[in-house]
Amino acid sequence: MTVGVDPNAPLGVFDSGLGGLTVVRELRRALPTEHIVYLGDTARVPYGTKAPATVVKYALGCARHLVARRVKALVIACNTVSAVAPERLRVELEIPVLGVIEPSARAAVAATRTGRIGVLATAGTISSGAYPRAVAAVSSRAVVVGQPAPLLVPLAEEGWTGGEVPRLAVERYLQPLVQAAVDVVLLGCTHYPLLRDVIEAEANRTLGAHVVVVDSARATSAAVRDFLHERGLSRGGSTSGARIDLLVTDIPGAFRETAARFLGGEVGEVEQVDL
Amino acid sequence: MTVGVDPNAPLGVFDSGLGGLTVVRELRRALPTEHIVYLGDTARVPYGTKAPATVVKYALGCARHLVARRVKALVIACNTVSAVAPERLRVELEIPVLGVIEPSARAAVAATRTGRIGVLATAGTISSGAYPRAVAAVSSRAVVVGQPAPLLVPLAEEGWTGGEVPRLAVERYLQPLVQAAVDVVLLGCTHYPLLRDVIEAEANRTLGAHVVVVDSARATSAAVRDFLHERGLSRGGSTSGARIDLLVTDIPGAFRETAARFLGGEVGEVEQVDL
Repeated sequence: MTVGVDPNAPLGVFDSGLGGLTVVRELRRALPTEHIVYLGDTARVPYGTKAPATVVKYALGCARHLVARRVKALVIACNTVSAVAPERLRVELEIPVLGVIEPSARAAVAATRTGRIGVLATAGTISSGAYPRAVAAVSSRAVVVGQPAPLLVPLAEEGWTGGEVPRLAVERYLQPLVQAAVDVVLLGCTHYPLLRDVIEAEANRTLGAHVVVVDSARATSAAVRDFLHERGLSRGGSTSGARIDLLVTDIPGAFRETAARFLGGEVGEVEQVDL
Repeated sequence: MTVGVDPNAPLGVFDSGLGGLTVVRELRRALPTEHIVYLGDTARVPYGTKAPATVVKYALGCARHLVARRVKALVIACNTVSAVAPERLRVELEIPVLGVIEPSARAAVAATRTGRIGVLATAGTISSGAYPRAVAAVSSRAVVVGQPAPLLVPLAEEGWTGGEVPRLAVERYLQPLVQAAVDVVLLGCTHYPLLRDVIEAEANRTLGAHVVVVDSARATSAAVRDFLHERGLSRGGSTSGARIDLLVTDIPGAFRETAARFLGGEVGEVEQVDL
């Protein structure tokens, strides 16, 4: 057990907005007894189109707020932040910091047979080169074909997760991955699990039934579970007492419906914080 | 002539991001001798999904920065800000403030024969009720049918302005306007002029050839021209010396291409400012 850390303390999870609630949903499945404090920087969403220095500045603000709430570890439930800020957060903070990119890269490498991995993500995540670096760190032969897919975030937020519009958008974004004949499609943005059905169907149609879709929310929750177990930081007890506290930086009114969609269930009180 | 104001001073124009450059493009056509300073709050874009209090705070920051650069008048090239912040800006600032909503509402009322006006805009602009209020101020009989169309902004930014994806999205957003049998479709977001062709084609197909598409960028530039002429604030001289200065709040690297698309031409130096 790590000295001085209370296993009963909550996990801190943050994202540029509400997309990271797909990670909370998976964490809830993998770790049903953990308290979770989630901070969505809804006033400044999206980070994916912003410059790295801006993203680092905002991420530090979110992280410090959660540290002040005495979380036992910090999960960056945002690919854009995980792409550009984790080293800086690890230097500045005194608690463990886990991102989504490394676990996702490991899951993609484990799933590929041909060594050709396609990544769909925001423009910021793709241009950061974080996925090729993370894959190279665990495999010398795997190659990454990155494709920015900016329309998928608004499609998920709008709830247009079925029908022709998302299908045609996904078909178009998959084209370069089809040309590269990848056998893994990694969903490198926490919004994309809402479009998983249409992405999987299009990937199977255009790339073949053997294609594996790897979901960064799921890969990350498994990594967080392993990390807590290894460090003796898991919270025991019953699942009934486990809380999810939701914090947002914009006025919370309009977010309940979207939050419920990402979380896959009822949302309780939402608190606004000023960063 | 308004006392103490230098007609040679630039016009200040600001927006949450780069969409307002469609207004600059129209201002350049209507007022080719004016200097323009444009500020795009690219670090905090979009405003359309944010709460009114947050939008007012950001808008004040942008406006004060432009006032410090001694602009002679301020054009809010953003429907979301024009919906929630103009009164506050008029109280706080000592220069004239012109928004996009009032001129657009007047143009829509002038264009309608049936009195039924459809408005496509961001969720923030629609839920503010600003268009129904502005239309009611100039016509007692016209009614507004508002439709949030959040996918149109990312489609414009992605450059997907033709083909099936924008056509199907526009078709879906127009459905409530078709049911209401409007005869004017007002483009209540500065991004939408980039999708004008597909919106006009779908509106003509589903609502009839008599439908008029009113563009808030064009209506606003006409109103700014009239305002400057009436106050004796127009800059004389040749068009050759007229400058457009572009300021952004995020690191400017990635914006040149998008800015050129909105502005409809080459973009010069882009300066970053910290608000």
